[in-house]
Amino acid sequence: MRLGIDVGGTKTAAVILDDNDAVVAELIRPTGYGRDEVLASVVESSVELAGRVGITADRFDSIGIGIPGAVNSATGRVEHAVNLGLDGFELGTEAAAQLGTRVAVENDVNAAAVGAYRYVSSTGSDTALGTDGLAYLNLGTGLAAGIVLDGHLRRGSSGVAGEIGHIPVDATGVICSCGQRGCLETIASGSAIARQWPTTGTSPVHDMMAAAAAGDPVAGRIRALLFEGVATAVRILTLSVDVRTVVLGGGVTSLGEPLLSGVNEVLDGWAESSPFLASLRLGERIRVIPKNHPVAAVGAALIGVP
Amino acid sequence: MRLGIDVGGTKTAAVILDDNDAVVAELIRPTGYGRDEVLASVVESSVELAGRVGITADRFDSIGIGIPGAVNSATGRVEHAVNLGLDGFELGTEAAAQLGTRVAVENDVNAAAVGAYRYVSSTGSDTALGTDGLAYLNLGTGLAAGIVLDGHLRRGSSGVAGEIGHIPVDATGVICSCGQRGCLETIASGSAIARQWPTTGTSPVHDMMAAAAAGDPVAGRIRALLFEGVATAVRILTLSVDVRTVVLGGGVTSLGEPLLSGVNEVLDGWAESSPFLASLRLGERIRVIPKNHPVAAVGAALIGVP
Ligand SMILES: [Zn+2]
Ligand SMILES: [Zn+2]
Repeated sequence: MRLGIDVGGTKTAAVILDDNDAVVAELIRPTGYGRDEVLASVVESSVELAGRVGITADRFDSIGIGIPGAVNSATGRVEHAVNLGLDGFELGTEAAAQLGTRVAVENDVNAAAVGAYRYVSSTGSDTALGTDGLAYLNLGTGLAAGIVLDGHLRRGSSGVAGEIGHIPVDATGVICSCGQRGCLETIASGSAIARQWPTTGTSPVHDMMAAAAAGDPVAGRIRALLFEGVATAVRILTLSVDVRTVVLGGGVTSLGEPLLSGVNEVLDGWAESSPFLASLRLGERIRVIPKNHPVAAVGAALIGVP
Repeated sequence: MRLGIDVGGTKTAAVILDDNDAVVAELIRPTGYGRDEVLASVVESSVELAGRVGITADRFDSIGIGIPGAVNSATGRVEHAVNLGLDGFELGTEAAAQLGTRVAVENDVNAAAVGAYRYVSSTGSDTALGTDGLAYLNLGTGLAAGIVLDGHLRRGSSGVAGEIGHIPVDATGVICSCGQRGCLETIASGSAIARQWPTTGTSPVHDMMAAAAAGDPVAGRIRALLFEGVATAVRILTLSVDVRTVVLGGGVTSLGEPLLSGVNEVLDGWAESSPFLASLRLGERIRVIPKNHPVAAVGAALIGVP
C-alpha cells in the first residue's frame, strides 16, 4: 500500500492506495504552520491512516508528499513554501526518520498532475493519453500547471516546467509577486480575484461570480478576465507542449459549470476569428477534476519514493 | 548512409550523413514551386548527392525531408506548405516511388530541432541534454520552435508543439495570418520586420538593423520589439517545457552578435526586476547555430524513416 499526503496551505489531505491504485482510506485535517507543525501534520496523518488499515506507517510501500512550493524532488528538501512557513527544510529526511520508511516530496501541482493523469487514465476515454500528454492546470491561490508527457511527470531542467502563471499577458497589468508585470496569475487565480474583489465573505471568487451574475459591471469585468485567463492558459499549453488533455483543478474550479462555460465561450470566440485555433479544438481538451477528488494526494502516493 | 533534405521556400539543402552522423556530402540548389517542381528538387538532389558518393539513391539507409508547412509525419503527406504551393501532397510516397527507398517527411522546424539536438550533443558541453531538453527556435519568415525532450522530438497531440509564434503577446498588435491579434510572430520574425520596415534592398532585417544603429527611431523601435520578442520566446519555452537549451536558428540569426546581445540586454533587464526570472538564467540557455550549418537537413537525415 502507498500513502500520499497533500499538504495544503490550510488543510492536509491524505490517502492510502491499494495495489490497484484504488483509494482505500482517506482523511482531511488542518495543516499547521512552520516546520514543526507541518512535519507533525505529515506524521500524524500517516500514523492515523496506517492505523485505519491495521498497519504501522513503516509498512507503507512508499510515502509521497505534495507541497505548495519549490521542492527538490531528488532530495526531499523544501526550498521555499511561503504559505507553510518553510524555507530550506529537509521534509523528506525528517519525515522518513519519524515514519521509518523513505518519503518522497514533490511540488503539489506536479503531484496533482500525476493524480490527474491517473484519473483520466482510469476513465479509459483517452486512448493515446501517454503520447498525447496531459497538463493539470491548477487554479488555486496561484495559477500553475503540471505536465505529464509519455506517462512521466516533466519537472523541467530547473523545476519550472508548467509555471505558465508567470508568463506576462497584460502589459498594463499589476506587478506580480514574481516581480514581473501582468503575469497570467495576476488575472486568473484565487489571489487575483481576492485582490480585485476584496470581500468580507469566505470566498471572494464565489462572491465575485454572484455579483457578476447580478449585473455588477466591475465583477463582470473581473469574471471576463478570469475566463479569458483560463482560456489563455489552455492556449499556451497547447501551443507549447500541445497536450491533448488539460485537466482543471484547484479551489477556483469549485465554481463548476459557470466557469467551464465561460471559458468555452472565450474559446469559441477565438475559434471564430482564427481557423488555426479552431482546428486545435481547445475546448475539447478541457476536463475538470470532480469536486473533492483528492487528486494531489493520489498523485503524491503514485510518486512515492523517487 | 542517410540522406537529409531541407526544402526551403527558395533553396533546398541536402546532406549525406555517414554511419557516425558526420556530414560527408552537401549541396544547395534552388527550390521549385508546386508539387512537380518540389518533387523534382527532392529527386534531383538525392540522385546528385548519391552520385557524389558513388551509389544510387535507393542505397541510402534512409531519406528524410524537412518541409516548411503542416506535415503528417506518419504518412509523409504534406497537408499545407503555402510557400511551396503544396496542399495535400503525398510527398513521401511520391519521392519513395522515384527514389526506390522509403522517405520520411517532417516539418522543417521539427527537423531542425533534431539537427540542433545533434549539434549541441556533438559539442559535448551539455551533459544532461537528454533529460533537460532542448528547443530550436526558428527565426525565419515566421517564428516557431521545435522541441526535443528525453532525446525525442515532441510533435504534440495535434502537431503544434512549439508553435509559440501564435501565442498573442500584444493586445494592440496587428492581425496575424492565423487570425489572432498580436501573435509573437507579428513582432519577432522576418515577415514581421519586412512588414514594419519595407525596403527595396535584399534584406529588410539587415536594413532595419543598420538604420537602427544609425539612430533611426522607427527602426530602433522595431529592433527593440524584435529583441523583446525573442526574449519572450525564450521565457515562454522555459515557463512551459523548461528546456535548458534554446538554440536560435533561421534567417534572422544571420544578424549575429547584435541580435544575441540585444536579446541578452532584455533578459538582463527582466532579471533585475524579477528574482524569479533571474534564478532561471534565461540568457545562459541560449545558443546560436553557426551560420551555414545545415541544421534542418542534418535533422531530416536523422529522422529518416519513421
Ligand atoms: Zn509572476
Ligand atoms: Zn498567429
